[in-house]
Amino acid sequence: MDNFTFHNTTKIIFGKGSENRVGKEVSKYSKKILLHYGGGTIKKTGLYDRVVSSLKKSGVDYIELGGVNPNPKLSLVRDGIKICKENDINFILAVGGGSVIDSSKAISIGALYNGDVWDFYLGKARIKDSLPIGTILTIPAAGSESSTGSVITNEDGAYKRAVNSELIYPKFSILNPELAFTLPKYQVASGSADILAHLMERYFTNSQHVELMDRIIESTMKTVINNVSTVLSQADNYDSWAEIMWSGTVAHNNLLNTGRVGDWGSHDIEHELSGIYDVAHGAGLAVIFPAWMKYVYKHDINRFVQFAVRVWNVENSFNVPEKTAIEGIKKVEDFFKLIGLPTNLKELGITDDRLEEMASKATNSDSSTVGNFVKLGKEDVYSILKLAQEK
Amino acid sequence: MDNFTFHNTTKIIFGKGSENRVGKEVSKYSKKILLHYGGGTIKKTGLYDRVVSSLKKSGVDYIELGGVNPNPKLSLVRDGIKICKENDINFILAVGGGSVIDSSKAISIGALYNGDVWDFYLGKARIKDSLPIGTILTIPAAGSESSTGSVITNEDGAYKRAVNSELIYPKFSILNPELAFTLPKYQVASGSADILAHLMERYFTNSQHVELMDRIIESTMKTVINNVSTVLSQADNYDSWAEIMWSGTVAHNNLLNTGRVGDWGSHDIEHELSGIYDVAHGAGLAVIFPAWMKYVYKHDINRFVQFAVRVWNVENSFNVPEKTAIEGIKKVEDFFKLIGLPTNLKELGITDDRLEEMASKATNSDSSTVGNFVKLGKEDVYSILKLAQEK
Repeated sequence: MDNFTFHNTTKIIFGKGSENRVGKEVSKYSKKILLHYGGGTIKKTGLYDRVVSSLKKSGVDYIELGGVNPNPKLSLVRDGIKICKENDINFILAVGGGSVIDSSKAISIGALYNGDVWDFYLGKARIKDSLPIGTILTIPAAGSESSTGSVITNEDGAYKRAVNSELIYPKFSILNPELAFTLPKYQVASGSADILAHLMERYFTNSQHVELMDRIIESTMKTVINNVSTVLSQADNYDSWAEIMWSGTVAHNNLLNTGRVGDWGSHDIEHELSGIYDVAHGAGLAVIFPAWMKYVYKHDINRFVQFAVRVWNVENSFNVPEKTAIEGIKKVEDFFKLIGLPTNLKELGITDDRLEEMASKATNSDSSTVGNFVKLGKEDVYSILKLAQEK
Repeated sequence: MDNFTFHNTTKIIFGKGSENRVGKEVSKYSKKILLHYGGGTIKKTGLYDRVVSSLKKSGVDYIELGGVNPNPKLSLVRDGIKICKENDINFILAVGGGSVIDSSKAISIGALYNGDVWDFYLGKARIKDSLPIGTILTIPAAGSESSTGSVITNEDGAYKRAVNSELIYPKFSILNPELAFTLPKYQVASGSADILAHLMERYFTNSQHVELMDRIIESTMKTVINNVSTVLSQADNYDSWAEIMWSGTVAHNNLLNTGRVGDWGSHDIEHELSGIYDVAHGAGLAVIFPAWMKYVYKHDINRFVQFAVRVWNVENSFNVPEKTAIEGIKKVEDFFKLIGLPTNLKELGITDDRLEEMASKATNSDSSTVGNFVKLGKEDVYSILKLAQEK
């Protein structure tokens, strides 16, 4: 087990009707906030009205900024920063999924910075301060509601880049599984793939003696796998949604990477995909991850055997471990197919060939590598994209 | 899954040599602290010197109070409060196991209270404020390093009582598995039983649809079970100690009871045992828990079957589930025996008969019940103690 520090400060408020506590929670921090949300679904579902009513009850004034899209854009982040600076706003409430929350985090660091917020995403500036943010989660997927990360796309060149800092843990996150009832099936499936991907990125590690977290990651994967089909066929199944929503947060709140180094290569590759083609992040991961697995599994067959046996209930071929490992990878692919996700680039709607460009971008023109389990250069990334294309 | 809030604010600093960071961490809060510890083992092992050196390097002044015993006593807590009040101390550093940490928490709430600190433990006063505390953990067991609890024994009548408050989460806890290398075997075994008991208390619940936490609790139990024998035979096995130490914290940091109501009846019964006889808490639990299981398992045989199959790898007797359940309970008992713990009152050194007195104390003279999975009155508690005696 590697040395680590773990200090997740986000307060989780979980359960039916929990969004009605938002005014009370926000008012501990500010009476004048930015209310940030997406394409307006929250207005159709009535969530917007409940949030605004709760804010008003607690005497919280707000300025609205909607319009966050999947793969949230830098331009809107800049708009949000401008609003915060011009109106002395010192709290941001994100109501939505990972994109809205990531966009809010970007605004929260940009609002207290004199330069351009993109500096942080380019690694040119270090986060030293941020406005506090709170969230009401509507899509179990990204885990941003209790994470240190924010991923933003710069439309100028279609670059998708991430920052990580303990300073952007939300102060609180409100998780009501009922809010997921209205999600379209494709988004449900993509979100579940995103959660599984967060778990698999952490699982595939070279760190030794990590039994507790191995087992807890496996537990969380099994729970997600066991409950996705239920919510796909019964959109209002609270119990299964509760399992998935809480799993999505636990998957990405940094507990599950204590004592180990995760991989994150598939995420880096997928970021180039959704940066250029604007596909759903989770769907992109469903395409990239199995291809990545096929390319790297020989690096540590035992770990892939453990994954196959413990997570996917594959019967171990003790004499031919490789067979078990490969069967586990097939289970992942089968699962993504079962829940209606693409498992190759063509199914994802990508028929042109910009593989070389993506491989180059992911590795900064071959000057760096992605991933930790196996460090992948430009040629490796190209090969994985090729595998994803051909499947 | 029940509605819940979860907000554990303790910063965990985990790994080899991590105690050398204590001065830096403490100095974020205070330059004048109470250094609280136990019987002086930390002086023999050199830990005391390293702590003091780190404090001095960071310019932190300290007043010492050693002498905490297992089942920490109210009188010493009162001494600590007096020292804090008279010397304007505003931070407490606990160096030791659960007893030292619980004693520090008691001092931290008493130091800012005008009445008698025992009021909190009797439920006569509510915790509204506390001094910040930090810990360096030397015994993986109680989980107090990242919990909301503190258990103190009032020697006047041998009452052992608990408080719970989010205000007593330590600000930081330093966990270095190397510090456990010198523990006597009996303490290792008792500590492991304590960790398992914390997991079992959470596991046996009437809350429905709690798959994620069921699985994570099972994961943590399996990890503890898999590693105890190793550290009993190889006292300096860092890897196994790391698994146990981190498991001990995860077991009790409140994540694992999210969405569910735990039982805690066995703890309440054991508190009377160690309150009167001053036995090791974990050893007391090793005696009480199997007796409790035998008394209550019919309340939910399916849950006991799941426990037997998933945690103890018992082959399920599908046609006679009760057989599986009973075999699981036997596995618990066998495990405690294997690691050298008593499994009945006689082996614990208790030969007189004060069962009635303990049953009465645990249930406040039959005016209340203990436990949630099954609510137990005085007669039930007496029956469980009788089972523990006869085994």
